[in-house]
Amino acid sequence: MLSQPVIYAFRASLKCWQRRTVRKAALKFGICRWLSTPTRGAVTGMEEILARVVSPLPTYETREKSPPPPEVNSLEFMHFYKSLDTGEKLDFLAKLSRDFGVDHKSVSEFARKLLHTQLRDLSTILQVEDRLRYSLTPRYKQLLNHISRVEGGVKFLVDLRADVLEIISSKGSESSHLRDLNGTLKSLLSEWFSVGLLRLERITWQSPCEILQKISQYEAVHPVRNWADLKHRVGPYRRCYAFTHAAMPGEPLVVLHVALTEEISDKIQCIVREFSTFDLEEDVNKINAAVFYSISSTQAGLQGVELGNYLIKRVVRELQSEFPHMAQFSSLSPIPGFSLWLQGLLNQYQKEGRGLDLLSEQEWQQVEQATDLSPGTSAIYALRELIATSQWMRSERLSCFLEPILMRLCAWYLYGEKRRGYALNPVANFHLQNGATLWRLNWHADTSPKGVANSCGIMVNYRYFLNETSKNSALYLQNKVIVASDQVLGLVSQFQKNSKL
Amino acid sequence: MLSQPVIYAFRASLKCWQRRTVRKAALKFGICRWLSTPTRGAVTGMEEILARVVSPLPTYETREKSPPPPEVNSLEFMHFYKSLDTGEKLDFLAKLSRDFGVDHKSVSEFARKLLHTQLRDLSTILQVEDRLRYSLTPRYKQLLNHISRVEGGVKFLVDLRADVLEIISSKGSESSHLRDLNGTLKSLLSEWFSVGLLRLERITWQSPCEILQKISQYEAVHPVRNWADLKHRVGPYRRCYAFTHAAMPGEPLVVLHVALTEEISDKIQCIVREFSTFDLEEDVNKINAAVFYSISSTQAGLQGVELGNYLIKRVVRELQSEFPHMAQFSSLSPIPGFSLWLQGLLNQYQKEGRGLDLLSEQEWQQVEQATDLSPGTSAIYALRELIATSQWMRSERLSCFLEPILMRLCAWYLYGEKRRGYALNPVANFHLQNGATLWRLNWHADTSPKGVANSCGIMVNYRYFLNETSKNSALYLQNKVIVASDQVLGLVSQFQKNSKL
Amino acid sequence: MLSQPVIYAFRASLKCWQRRTVRKAALKFGICRWLSTPTRGAVTGMEEILARVVSPLPTYETREKSPPPPEVNSLEFMHFYKSLDTGEKLDFLAKLSRDFGVDHKSVSEFARKLLHTQLRDLSTILQVEDRLRYSLTPRYKQLLNHISRVEGGVKFLVDLRADVLEIISSKGSESSHLRDLNGTLKSLLSEWFSVGLLRLERITWQSPCEILQKISQYEAVHPVRNWADLKHRVGPYRRCYAFTHAAMPGEPLVVLHVALTEEISDKIQCIVREFSTFDLEEDVNKINAAVFYSISSTQAGLQGVELGNYLIKRVVRELQSEFPHMAQFSSLSPIPGFSLWLQGLLNQYQKEGRGLDLLSEQEWQQVEQATDLSPGTSAIYALRELIATSQWMRSERLSCFLEPILMRLCAWYLYGEKRRGYALNPVANFHLQNGATLWRLNWHADTSPKGVANSCGIMVNYRYFLNETSKNSALYLQNKVIVASDQVLGLVSQFQKNSKL
Amino acid sequence: MLSQPVIYAFRASLKCWQRRTVRKAALKFGICRWLSTPTRGAVTGMEEILARVVSPLPTYETREKSPPPPEVNSLEFMHFYKSLDTGEKLDFLAKLSRDFGVDHKSVSEFARKLLHTQLRDLSTILQVEDRLRYSLTPRYKQLLNHISRVEGGVKFLVDLRADVLEIISSKGSESSHLRDLNGTLKSLLSEWFSVGLLRLERITWQSPCEILQKISQYEAVHPVRNWADLKHRVGPYRRCYAFTHAAMPGEPLVVLHVALTEEISDKIQCIVREFSTFDLEEDVNKINAAVFYSISSTQAGLQGVELGNYLIKRVVRELQSEFPHMAQFSSLSPIPGFSLWLQGLLNQYQKEGRGLDLLSEQEWQQVEQATDLSPGTSAIYALRELIATSQWMRSERLSCFLEPILMRLCAWYLYGEKRRGYALNPVANFHLQNGATLWRLNWHADTSPKGVANSCGIMVNYRYFLNETSKNSALYLQNKVIVASDQVLGLVSQFQKNSKL
Repeated sequence: MLSQPVIYAFRASLKCWQRRTVRKAALKFGICRWLSTPTRGAVTGMEEILARVVSPLPTYETREKSPPPPEVNSLEFMHFYKSLDTGEKLDFLAKLSRDFGVDHKSVSEFARKLLHTQLRDLSTILQVEDRLRYSLTPRYKQLLNHISRVEGGVKFLVDLRADVLEIISSKGSESSHLRDLNGTLKSLLSEWFSVGLLRLERITWQSPCEILQKISQYEAVHPVRNWADLKHRVGPYRRCYAFTHAAMPGEPLVVLHVALTEEISDKIQCIVREFSTFDLEEDVNKINAAVFYSISSTQAGLQGVELGNYLIKRVVRELQSEFPHMAQFSSLSPIPGFSLWLQGLLNQYQKEGRGLDLLSEQEWQQVEQATDLSPGTSAIYALRELIATSQWMRSERLSCFLEPILMRLCAWYLYGEKRRGYALNPVANFHLQNGATLWRLNWHADTSPKGVANSCGIMVNYRYFLNETSKNSALYLQNKVIVASDQVLGLVSQFQKNSKL
Repeated sequence: MLSQPVIYAFRASLKCWQRRTVRKAALKFGICRWLSTPTRGAVTGMEEILARVVSPLPTYETREKSPPPPEVNSLEFMHFYKSLDTGEKLDFLAKLSRDFGVDHKSVSEFARKLLHTQLRDLSTILQVEDRLRYSLTPRYKQLLNHISRVEGGVKFLVDLRADVLEIISSKGSESSHLRDLNGTLKSLLSEWFSVGLLRLERITWQSPCEILQKISQYEAVHPVRNWADLKHRVGPYRRCYAFTHAAMPGEPLVVLHVALTEEISDKIQCIVREFSTFDLEEDVNKINAAVFYSISSTQAGLQGVELGNYLIKRVVRELQSEFPHMAQFSSLSPIPGFSLWLQGLLNQYQKEGRGLDLLSEQEWQQVEQATDLSPGTSAIYALRELIATSQWMRSERLSCFLEPILMRLCAWYLYGEKRRGYALNPVANFHLQNGATLWRLNWHADTSPKGVANSCGIMVNYRYFLNETSKNSALYLQNKVIVASDQVLGLVSQFQKNSKL
Repeated sequence: MLSQPVIYAFRASLKCWQRRTVRKAALKFGICRWLSTPTRGAVTGMEEILARVVSPLPTYETREKSPPPPEVNSLEFMHFYKSLDTGEKLDFLAKLSRDFGVDHKSVSEFARKLLHTQLRDLSTILQVEDRLRYSLTPRYKQLLNHISRVEGGVKFLVDLRADVLEIISSKGSESSHLRDLNGTLKSLLSEWFSVGLLRLERITWQSPCEILQKISQYEAVHPVRNWADLKHRVGPYRRCYAFTHAAMPGEPLVVLHVALTEEISDKIQCIVREFSTFDLEEDVNKINAAVFYSISSTQAGLQGVELGNYLIKRVVRELQSEFPHMAQFSSLSPIPGFSLWLQGLLNQYQKEGRGLDLLSEQEWQQVEQATDLSPGTSAIYALRELIATSQWMRSERLSCFLEPILMRLCAWYLYGEKRRGYALNPVANFHLQNGATLWRLNWHADTSPKGVANSCGIMVNYRYFLNETSKNSALYLQNKVIVASDQVLGLVSQFQKNSKL
Repeated sequence: MLSQPVIYAFRASLKCWQRRTVRKAALKFGICRWLSTPTRGAVTGMEEILARVVSPLPTYETREKSPPPPEVNSLEFMHFYKSLDTGEKLDFLAKLSRDFGVDHKSVSEFARKLLHTQLRDLSTILQVEDRLRYSLTPRYKQLLNHISRVEGGVKFLVDLRADVLEIISSKGSESSHLRDLNGTLKSLLSEWFSVGLLRLERITWQSPCEILQKISQYEAVHPVRNWADLKHRVGPYRRCYAFTHAAMPGEPLVVLHVALTEEISDKIQCIVREFSTFDLEEDVNKINAAVFYSISSTQAGLQGVELGNYLIKRVVRELQSEFPHMAQFSSLSPIPGFSLWLQGLLNQYQKEGRGLDLLSEQEWQQVEQATDLSPGTSAIYALRELIATSQWMRSERLSCFLEPILMRLCAWYLYGEKRRGYALNPVANFHLQNGATLWRLNWHADTSPKGVANSCGIMVNYRYFLNETSKNSALYLQNKVIVASDQVLGLVSQFQKNSKL
């Protein structure tokens, strides 16, 4: 098994390697001054570097006549940034985004000019608009562009954006300049990681060890336990696909694991934990369904750049050409946050004394009986404890009795709980955006400790009906409508009959 | 030899193939309606298509919540456009750029809003700026983005831009909307063809025939005569490099031919026409210089997207790592337009009777003697005839006597003739932008009929002194200064002594 | 078109390259003595070299304890041999095969020993047999083995055997030692070119130019006219396959060209000369038959090492997996030698005055009428002239009248003319050995001058009925039975009715 | 870590896979009879199969006219053999080798004929010799040849020979027919695995996981502990090379691990157990020596087919071209068997009461003192115990005192102990055959439990002086001379001074 320390060692070595690459490139260009004396931490150092490295925006007229700055500028910036610690990075990015962003004066000047030309001919208007657009370019955009051209530059920018996102999420609203920087980075990355530039790779046991190791590290949904497990996940009755990008060789950007099954799976154990299929050759006649049981984005810095969506679509096409008669496509997805949400709910209802809103009287009695309630303990507390400790799993009676309750609550959680109108649960939101249908909740679908702790062992299938995904996606994104199966809607209506939120 | 008709056949088949690809993709998506009845030429067809295919820009708030339109939209647009004839294309592009561009009302509204917020806090200003920036997005930009994701889409857009550029250059100033479309296309293409995304390929006799055939077709500077010639150009003492792009597989975007020589060549014949090196194995000790003797961009639609510049730099790095001691890098370049310019000059001076401004009296006498001037013919006319007919080449006497005259005129043409401050000659402009030095004019350097007709057989070396190119490039682009060698400056000063323009 | 001189240039360069390789390897091993002073031509040189380079056979006991000789021995042998001219090569090979072959004394000694042990136990017999077997190893076998391990060594031995074969075929019966050398070489090459070690490659327009050029050069059956023709032959509705070998990279050993057609072709023009399919995409529904229209062995030195047979079988399997419903496999083959054979026949019959044995009286009259026989000329002479000059092709009347005659003669030529019991025609012999059926003679199938000259424009389909090839092959090889279709048998019986041989 | 059970699982799956391959191939050929009812174990089944599958040898005259038998014969043989258990395999191979070997009658007949022709002309003699040679071909040879052509056939034969070798080594002298079969197999495999047909592959962390897993499994000398260890062994300052073969894709045949060091290593710990170099980039200036620290053959069936020898030579050439100035090449080798030999010696000397022959009186006293000898125990017994239990390692005093004794004994073991005149120790024999010098014994070189148990922690460098290896190899193989360094010879002479054997 690849133990944690080993993984850390790999990561450390990876980091090391990245530095080395920059250093090497720097050496190649014959500039060692800043390498030997990394002016770490000195704020003046930052300003000096930025002033030197971020060239002023050329005038509109000469914008096509400015030679690219020497590569060493980009390398210096990259090296300097990497030498900073977290706090310094924050300062540095703040400075960069604030002092080297848009020239507001120039923007307002052209905005004014535009208003004055409104009555003039269209040609003039178009010209002023173009100047206005140009004036809205932040000064640092050029630098980012140049960095992307250096070896390792694109990966650097992806990581830079990850830092920016982290700062934004932790600092909240103060960081409007950083938001602008983030917007610029995102739009650049969106172009560079446009789907036409991505390469679909099937990962097998014949793939380079380096890639397989990364696949193993990046698997967040159902962690890979050891190399035999990994071999299994790229073996018969399994498919593993990744998008890679020419500018980040050897780096899978988003990874999709698929199980090929007779029917849409309702248990993750059959897919990742039981090795009955290990030595088998695939029998095409037993393959009717493709179950997406794990999808992982690996680059925090590519948040919001749609890759997973496109990967699923590409893989569907790939599978259709391999298995022309395959007609069932579905995820088997975890429901992270359900237990937490449920416990919060119980907590709140306990405080508010609204227990009856959630379970019927009869159900509460069952809870009391089932839990051997000690006197003075409320049934609602007992239920919360049950769920918090996963104890109910060990009792068949409790399990049977809880099934309808947890299933209807979970259906509601997925279908009814929203954030800005969209599904609160991020996995649900992802698949619904893609146009999937909220198709089936599965009891006892993930009985691993993690599965029980996260979602009471329930998992969900988001099913892709191929000729409905476009429509569904639009319905969801534009009208916030969730398309669900009868099973799910049935559970939801049970919830609504029995519970008040 | 690959005769012209054959080449045309290839091109035709290429085109055919492209259509087929689209058709195939279309079939895959199950839409054949518009394929069987291409609504060719009907203006209403155009409007109907555009209205259907170019989605409205989402609002600023929902801009990240709009699902991508179905791929079939992009395919329909591509197919429809390809079915149009030249005139129809013009109409179609005009409509697209005019009716589906920027929403001017919205822009002016946000411009006004921006002016009103000038006194508010920076955060508000930044927000309004971002909305203003968004409002400046043409509606068709989204469509272009979606097309780029379809198989063959990027190539389609490159070709579309080639059409746009042709219309602009032929229609002149009326086309301000088309200019906007061109600007949008160029900025998108610049991102997609960013250097980090390009792949340097060395072309050899082991490369796919398909690539070599294209290399042969695209070679514009010194046409490839047959396959033996081609084999020679990728054989020993030669290097041929190209940039390719993941989204346009098998398509070299820009091609650089290099000769590896003992010293910087002063004759193209030794490089492309004499096969003495054909069977030789390279002797590293005889390789001191890299002579770039041909660089060809293959995609009209990538005009203004800097590729050649970067290719030369990458190749220099490549060569340095192959030949660590190599220190001389230079082009051996044609001088297209010199003869034409000279004839124009003579014509004009003849009309204006200013012959003496160009040649000294003694020189004119020599012309008279040399040409057996029939009575009534002016020497200036005789000289023009000589040059127009290339007859002087056949006479050693004429040749010797013309050498100093033509050399100083040519030096002036390259060094002194400007357009908006930059070198008039496009090849000169290209290399000077890259930071090369105008290093040496070579007499009798291209004695092919084409060479004599274009530039009186003169060629020029633009030399790349690696640690001066950055500086030179900036000097040229920003201050319009041309760095030249003593030889060239000497010729220029001879010109200035003897001639008045 | 790739003109002859160019091809020669290529070959020369190839040869050069091979020498260079050896020289390079030699230099690497630090021995230049024999390279600077190639002891060309001196017979003593030969003997000295052979004595030094061909080590004596180790004793049976130490046969596994003898270290391989230094590589330089092999290189020296290769270099020396290549420096010889044709006559010298003959001398050299004669010496090698005679003086460094089997030790006859030792063989007879062990033969005697074996006879003495006949009454002993089996174990002793086996031991003596093994010693006898070992004593039958020619001394040069070791050297050949060592050469095969040197870079370029296998190719050298293939070429060496080609030389040996040429000498044998020109010298006749004197060369029994050379025959032994040939046998040794053949058995070694058979092991090294065993089918398990060959790689099937499909050649397309994306294959390296180097390979395609060779494919073009090696095509002997229907010469490739130019690169467009070549592109056609690897394009849609065509397949081109070759066997290659790890020890001879970039060298196709045997090449098979296949046309994919609706039905088994009866005209070569539709395959190699008409480009109607040039731009088409393949329509799988129109592909019912695979027609092998050209198969070329490229290495004279691999004569007798079965490759073509295996290539056809592999290709059939390949095609079946690409087109599962394909059921018709057939060659469309030339009939080299038919015209020659026919003219010889006519000549002989004319001399012997046996004209009536070949044509019926009525047919002879038709010949007389058709040819406007000048008085004193015999009809048989006129017919021979007709065929020799191919004039009949231009006359529809002649053509019609000659068809039944030539077809039945040709059927007989293929079916009835034998050499040692097997088909005289080498192409027929090849396909019949493979188990094909003599299926259909096609009139006007190859109207090219070469086709008419060689076989009066007739071609033949040898059809491969897959579940009969094993049986047919055995029938032919062991019982000399030719399996033919009704059409062919019908023609043969017409011949037998009308003609006497 | 890849635990044992997992490895077994892999092996099991491998086996399964091989069966599947055969079964698949069989299905492809439409023969299922023998697959559905494997006539396992029935002796009559064996005979029936062999009679059907092993064709009779064609006559000398028709030997080139016999069509290859259908592939299904080979597949049937392979499938049947694989279905047998160990005992049945023995029976089967015995039958095959006995009943389908050489036709002794025919051999003796031609031997007699040969003796009768001794006075005839050479040509006749050569002919009879060739017939005799042909008659010495065992009938099964053809079958083996045909099997090699089937997919997976070569690997099958390699494994078959492994079985044959095992039977021979366990059955001893009775198996003279099996010895013949072994000889035939070996000579065929030697041709197919001739060096010209092998491919050198460098194994890195980018190599397919499948290969790396095998490298890990096959490493017998210093077992790979986990994947981090494995990554280390293919990382910086390390090289891992393998020979692979076209007919056994993905299967490394022989693997060589090299450490790149400043000087020739004297401790294995620095190479395989300390990860200080893990993240480092290689510094070429620190690389002066290549230390071969592990070489493993992976295929028992290729015993006697020289691969390791050639691999070392190829790797040396490879390293020389990567590091032109590298001049030191050496192994760092284990000494398996030394402890065992030593204990046997002590045992015997104890019995014979010859203790003084091995150590000096003074040394024995030291042993007595050091081991706190209990009364009645002999010093020789105590010493044996010390060595058997590795206890002395824990005491610095003991260690110091034993060093000179064990070193001189070990030197003698390597240099003086022989089997049929060659070094008894197999590792020594391997390197000495290759022409290496017995260069340096290293104390405390492998302090792992295994290292101490096997060879008292001593390791040895066999050094390759490149321009002496040919000479050394011949000296050793032909004259049984071991070339050793002064250090080793010094130790040997100490041994000889102090010890009598």
